[in-house]
This record gives sequence, structure tokens and C-alpha cells, in this order.
Amino acid sequence: MDFVPTPDKLIPDLTPAQEIVLLARTLWREGYRDHLAGHITYNLGDGTLLCNPWLLTWREIRPRDILRITLDGEVVEGQWPVPLGIPLHLELHRARPDVRVAVHNHPDFGTIWADMREMPPVYDQSSSLGGGGDLVLIDEYDGAVNNTESARKAVEALGAGELALLAGHGVFILGTTIRAAHQRAVALEQRCRNAWMVRAAGGRPDSALPQWWLERMARSDGNGFHGFWEAGVRAELAAEPDLLDD
Amino acid sequence: MDFVPTPDKLIPDLTPAQEIVLLARTLWREGYRDHLAGHITYNLGDGTLLCNPWLLTWREIRPRDILRITLDGEVVEGQWPVPLGIPLHLELHRARPDVRVAVHNHPDFGTIWADMREMPPVYDQSSSLGGGGDLVLIDEYDGAVNNTESARKAVEALGAGELALLAGHGVFILGTTIRAAHQRAVALEQRCRNAWMVRAAGGRPDSALPQWWLERMARSDGNGFHGFWEAGVRAELAAEPDLLDD
Amino acid sequence: MDFVPTPDKLIPDLTPAQEIVLLARTLWREGYRDHLAGHITYNLGDGTLLCNPWLLTWREIRPRDILRITLDGEVVEGQWPVPLGIPLHLELHRARPDVRVAVHNHPDFGTIWADMREMPPVYDQSSSLGGGGDLVLIDEYDGAVNNTESARKAVEALGAGELALLAGHGVFILGTTIRAAHQRAVALEQRCRNAWMVRAAGGRPDSALPQWWLERMARSDGNGFHGFWEAGVRAELAAEPDLLDD
Amino acid sequence: MDFVPTPDKLIPDLTPAQEIVLLARTLWREGYRDHLAGHITYNLGDGTLLCNPWLLTWREIRPRDILRITLDGEVVEGQWPVPLGIPLHLELHRARPDVRVAVHNHPDFGTIWADMREMPPVYDQSSSLGGGGDLVLIDEYDGAVNNTESARKAVEALGAGELALLAGHGVFILGTTIRAAHQRAVALEQRCRNAWMVRAAGGRPDSALPQWWLERMARSDGNGFHGFWEAGVRAELAAEPDLLDD
Repeated sequence: MDFVPTPDKLIPDLTPAQEIVLLARTLWREGYRDHLAGHITYNLGDGTLLCNPWLLTWREIRPRDILRITLDGEVVEGQWPVPLGIPLHLELHRARPDVRVAVHNHPDFGTIWADMREMPPVYDQSSSLGGGGDLVLIDEYDGAVNNTESARKAVEALGAGELALLAGHGVFILGTTIRAAHQRAVALEQRCRNAWMVRAAGGRPDSALPQWWLERMARSDGNGFHGFWEAGVRAELAAEPDLLDD
Repeated sequence: MDFVPTPDKLIPDLTPAQEIVLLARTLWREGYRDHLAGHITYNLGDGTLLCNPWLLTWREIRPRDILRITLDGEVVEGQWPVPLGIPLHLELHRARPDVRVAVHNHPDFGTIWADMREMPPVYDQSSSLGGGGDLVLIDEYDGAVNNTESARKAVEALGAGELALLAGHGVFILGTTIRAAHQRAVALEQRCRNAWMVRAAGGRPDSALPQWWLERMARSDGNGFHGFWEAGVRAELAAEPDLLDD
Repeated sequence: MDFVPTPDKLIPDLTPAQEIVLLARTLWREGYRDHLAGHITYNLGDGTLLCNPWLLTWREIRPRDILRITLDGEVVEGQWPVPLGIPLHLELHRARPDVRVAVHNHPDFGTIWADMREMPPVYDQSSSLGGGGDLVLIDEYDGAVNNTESARKAVEALGAGELALLAGHGVFILGTTIRAAHQRAVALEQRCRNAWMVRAAGGRPDSALPQWWLERMARSDGNGFHGFWEAGVRAELAAEPDLLDD
Repeated sequence: MDFVPTPDKLIPDLTPAQEIVLLARTLWREGYRDHLAGHITYNLGDGTLLCNPWLLTWREIRPRDILRITLDGEVVEGQWPVPLGIPLHLELHRARPDVRVAVHNHPDFGTIWADMREMPPVYDQSSSLGGGGDLVLIDEYDGAVNNTESARKAVEALGAGELALLAGHGVFILGTTIRAAHQRAVALEQRCRNAWMVRAAGGRPDSALPQWWLERMARSDGNGFHGFWEAGVRAELAAEPDLLDD
């Protein structure tokens, strides 16, 4: 596929399965690349979810690999097993039908703040994109999120939050669309990277951004930045031109 | 295109639009790679500017994508919208007709010093290249630079400066040519990187470079290093041989 | 070779020599890439070992380059010399016939903790994978491990350990299979990287992971994570499709 | 060229000009990649030197680009100008006819210790390779090394040294062969990198390596590690198979 973007058509039309593949691959490049780790779920609203398969990395999945599963984690369509960590997502989608997309992984810098159990300051404009309200630190390690009980506790601790650090583990990011989840995942990793850089240099803990700006940005639903998601999609299609074929 | 450089002809002849594309792409490799962020304007001196388009990244633009716009931001030639952040550049070019080229972005290390609101020392020769006088810290965050009022304040705070850190945001670099802007953008990022490295290691705050040298270097107009810009151009043409085709 | 994975067949069938090549190459990507350094031995249980050849890097070896040697280091099959540092492995395999696979190298972050002679905390789930019991610090530098006497001392200091930092030198990782050695080598480098990141940022020294979890994870034999090794193998085969040919 | 190494023939036969090209390119990958910076001279012993050309980067030069110049810097063979910084090398070769090869550049981590004006401890085995005696800190900045007077002072300050940090500038590495210069340049950058990593993490200042080992290693002439240089050469030839053609 040799897609040439125009102002009216920034990317090809995409199915939800293609969107999941593109989200996984573009986030891999952003630092969400911990081997087999990571799940993305997409609530179809009919009692089923799309999700990435277990046993393949985010860098290698293709549209044909995407699963459709029930809210109990049973595979309805697809040839692969369900990710081991899916209980976290099942609990989440059962508790919060408003959430369309959920992303979990162990990104390079997000994981460091989860390890430190501290909040990364939002030091700059790019770090503040995408909204999602206050970042929540879920600091109760009950083993991996692949058992139902600890998944339920994590979802309870999240409350109405949409962005979380899971202490000693990774991050959890929610959104109403793939686009919003992408925006928030990129911004969270930039926030964590830049805050780490400032911290390692012994820089000041307070941000240049005024409180009114931070509050305004935090209220974003993550869907407003036209072109941001599309730029990520085009980079993946340029790297693997036949990615959408199946 | 299979260009072979000779001492008399280091790179092919370039139009201003091609120069903008090559500047954007070579700076992307230098760390100016924050997704859709970044604008480059080139004052044609006839009341119009060339600039990169909105909705495409610096890594993917081609000569055909470059816009010509008025000093009020109206598109005269080109199919793409004007970058949202262009008011900063419009204010600048209206206030300072001597400036031919202006570059704004959020580079990897420059942004960290903008986040810390501190001046990176000039620790070495490479960090001192390109001149541009004193680095200015513009520490007034009035929201993004995409509204006219805050753009005007930023231009006022810059005064006659040619290099700035925008607190909580990124950098702003001016020059009389694309070549000069390139030299300064590369040197500023090296300065910020090396100073961060020294700082993270708890190194001394004073530079090995004597004051007379720093002052001499600061007075450079950025055009004197024959071959520096050309080396960056060749690397981009080697990576994408048909880049100049259109 | 254009291998397409399925749930029943995640990777092609591999000979032990192919496994060694794939282990070396995938670990190179994980940071085990110190030029000519590094050896992998595989105890065939018949008085001979397979090992990588001297004079070729882990990035370039192919199945035809793998040696078979005796427990005294004599080459039985293969055209290359034995690695200079092999005495460490010979001592190890003589003393501990239970160990099938041994890996030594100087990875990016593991070497830093070996240089600091400190234990990297296990800050997160990924860092705790693969087991291998307590990480042992062997802090006696008697010259390189390429003489028998200092190799013997190192093996004695290791005791029944399966994971070690060799002070001022690198790491040593044991396992019952190539798969287990891979899991442990990846996890150890992630542990060392993340702990370095926390340390450089002045983060807390204690881990979020509870003691019971750490102890449970430490008891793993490294073979339980189905698909982890296979994902690494597929990435190498995608990068060099004819790698298994010979 | 599709060269297949054997134990008797690790690399193709190389001319001195090809060796310079391969040294420049492999060191670029090791962190010696500051744009147009860097010179390599090779004393032919007949009153002339080979050197890399000005105006081309170390990453792009080919054998045909190598110059032959007199000890006064006049070009005898070759189409390119002499590097601006060559006076440092001319002074060196005039003062020390025993030195065959001299390398100057601004590598990623070496430059940081030159900026800090501190000695990086030798923390590990790889950092101690290649010998060259004590690392000398030349802490007199008289402007760039491209004028004869400051070049002479730098050579005097170096004394009989073979490895130097040039404060606020970069590094200077001498050897009797291209192979030795390569070994020393790689080891110096590893030493500087690992020491920076330890320092940024607040690690101990003393090394695990005993004094007798450090002294023994320091006496190496840099030529003894068979296969090390050859591995670097093969990686470059794999990346650009027609590199030796001319």
C-alpha cells in the first residue's frame, strides 16, 4: 500500500482491529516494548471486547491476530489464547462500561516512576496532552494482575481515574477511543521521561506550567488533537506497507 | 538521485522549500522529534513566509508540502493548513524583519533545560558553535504559543535575542539563513545534552572554555562553518535518495 | 525462511546449535554486546559441551560456527578456536553437572552494578522473572577469568548460585535450558537497568514488591514462561530470514 | 563483496587508506560521531601522512577520499582539503616520530569527562583494554587546536602520553597501528561511559580492579587482542559491502 496523505484524508480507513494493531506498534516505538507484556482491549459494547493475542509481541501482531472475547475472557473469534493479564481489563470493563479502550504495559520511563512510587511532575506542554485527570498511584502489589482478586482491588483503587501507575509493575491508561488512548499513552511516557531527566539532574520539583493550564489540560478527553494519532499511523504504514492487508 | 560530492560541489543546488525540508529532517535526527510539534519559517522579504505544513511530521514532509503564507498567517500557496503554533512566528517576523529563518520545537535535551528553567553551561567547543548571543530564558507561560497575545509577550521577552528556551515548552532559534539556523539548533542541543550529562554526574558548574572564547563564539552569525550544513544534507539524501524530486 | 507462527507452533524446530546462535543474537539486542566478549556453553551430558566460537561476535555467528569441545576445552568439532575465557565455564561444568547452560558477558547495565559492587534491587515484575535464587556478588578480581585458578575461585564463590555479578567484569548466568538462560539474562538486565534508573534519580532503595512475591519468583526454574523465548527467536529470524540455513 | 571469515583469514587484506576508512566508520558507531569533527593521521615514515579529508564525515568517507599530506600540511595526493584541526597532528608527528597513528574526536562520553575535567576511573576489564599508559588531562584551552601555537602547547602537555582528554573539547589517542588506535579508542569510550554511569548513580569512586592489574594493562601496546579490530571491520563491511571498492 502506498498511501499518500492529503488534508482531507490523513490515513486510510481503519477497522477497530487494524487500530489496535497500529496502536500497539506505534506505542512499541514510544517505549511500550517490554517483550510479551501489554494488553489493549476495545469494548464493542455488545458484551464482547477486542484484544491483542497472547504469545505475540506488540511489534509483530497483525490485524488477523486480534481476538474477540467475552467479558469473562472466553475467545469468540480468533486463533490465539487470551493474554494472561486480561483479568485486570475484564474487571475494568465490567465496572466501567463508559470506558471503550484500556491499555496496560511496562513502558521504559513509566515503569521507573511506578518503581519509585512517586508522581512525575508535568513539566511541559507535551507532557500535559491528552487529559485523563489526575494520575493515580495504585500502590498495592498483590501479585501480578492476572488473578481476579488482585485485578478487582486495582480497579477499585483506580476509582474514576483514567491514568494510573501500578507500583512495581507498569501503567494503565483508559480512553473513549483508540485515538485518546494513544494520545494519553504518548504523553504519559513523555511526562515520565522528562520528569526523570529533571530529577536525575537535580532540577526543581515544581513545574513551569501554571495550575490553571494543568487543570484545563487534565480535563481533555484525549480526542481533540487532530492529526496526532494519524502521524503515528503513517509512520507504521511506512515501516511495513502491507500491514493492513490482513 | 545519486549525488557524489566534490570539494567544489558538496550538495546539489537547493530551493528554499527543499532547504526547509532538509532542515526539518536533519534536525529530527538531532533530537527535534516531538511528534507533530515544530515549525520553521523562512521570510521571503516580500510580505510572505515559507513554512512547514500542519498535520505532517518533520520526518515525513517533502518539498511539495511546504506552504507560502502571509504575515497574517493566510495560505498563499500549498494544500495544507498552517501550523497551530504559527502566531509566535508571525509576531516575530513582523517585529524583526532582519530575521530570515525561525525554528521552534521541543528537542530531547533543550526541553529538559526549559523544564528546569536553568541555563545550560557551554562546556565545550561543539556546544559553542553557531553564535546567536546569549541564550534567553522566557519564563512566562501564558498557555501555548498559538494565541497572539502570548506570542507577542514571548517575542517581547526575547528582545534582540536569537536563541531562547521557552520555559515548560521548548526552544526558539533564529538565523539569517537555513544554514545558520541549522548550526545553532545542532549546537544548542549538544550544549543542552552535554550540560545535562555533567549535571547528572554532579560535575562542576564552570566551563573549561575561557570567557574571551565564549564571547567570540557568541558573536558568530552562524554562517561561517563551511561544510557543516552540507554534511547534514547529504545524510538525508543518502537516507531518501528521491527526496528532492518533489 | 518465511515462518508464520501459530499457537501450536510458535517457532521452527531448533537444534541446540541453532538455539545457541539465537540466544547470542537476541541477547546482543538486550544489551549483551561488548564486542568479542561473551561465551555460552551447553552441556551435552556426554563429556562434551557446545559453545560459541572465539573471534566472532554474538551478532554475527551462525549455526555452522558452533563448536563442540571436551570438558578440558579441546575442540572436537568445529573450525574455530575456543573462547579465551572458557576456563570459567569448564570449571563450572565440571563442578556442577546439573547445570546445562552457562552464559557470561558484559551487558550494558549488569556491568555497571558489577562495577559498583552493589546489589540492584528488584523493583518490578519484569525484573523478577526467571528465578535463579539470590544474585551473588563475586568480588574477587584475580585477573580475567581466562586462567584456571581464578576461574576455580569464581566457581567456588558462586556456590550453588545461578546468577552472579563478577565485580569489575560482568555477569554469569546459569540454567537448565537455553530458554531458562534467556529468561534470566533478560530479567537480570532489566533489573539492573531499572534499578540504575531509580538510583540515578535518587529514588527509594526499597522495592514495591513484597517479600513473599520475591521469594516465590526467585524459586522459578526459568522454564515456565511459555512464549517468551519464542518471541525473541522470531525477532531474530525476521531480521535475518536465512539464519537457520547453516 | 561477500567476505566469509575463516580462522586463518578474519578480514580481507587492507591498504592503509582502507584501514583509515574502516577505523573512522567503526568509531562512529562507538560514539565518535560529532558531525564533521575528527581527524585520523597515519605516519608513512617518509615525511608524509595519510589523513581523512575535511568536509566529509567519518560515516561517509571512502578509500578514494583519503589524503596524503606533508608534515607541513600540504596535500600531496587527494582531492579534498586538509582538516582545519590538523595542526595538532602535525605538531605531534613532528615531535614524536615513534607514533604511527593519531586520532582526535569528540566522542559521546569522552567529551563529558573532558568537560568535567576529571579522570574517569577504570572500573572494569573492558575499560582497561589497549594500554596507552596514564590518561592525561590537558587542561589549557587556548582556542581550538587549529592554530599552531595552541597545538604545540597541547603536544608539550601530553609529554610521552598516548591517551588524553582535551578539556572542554574531546580526546586524543595515539598508537603504533590502526589496530592499536582502535582498541584504545573503544576502551576509552567504554571507560568514560561506565564511569559516567557509576557516577550518575552515586557509586563508589574506587575500582574493583587491583592496582597490579591496572598497571599491567596500562603497559599494553594495544596490538595484542587478535580479532578485536577484525570484528569491527567485518561489521562495517556487512553494513556497506562495496566499501573497499574505492
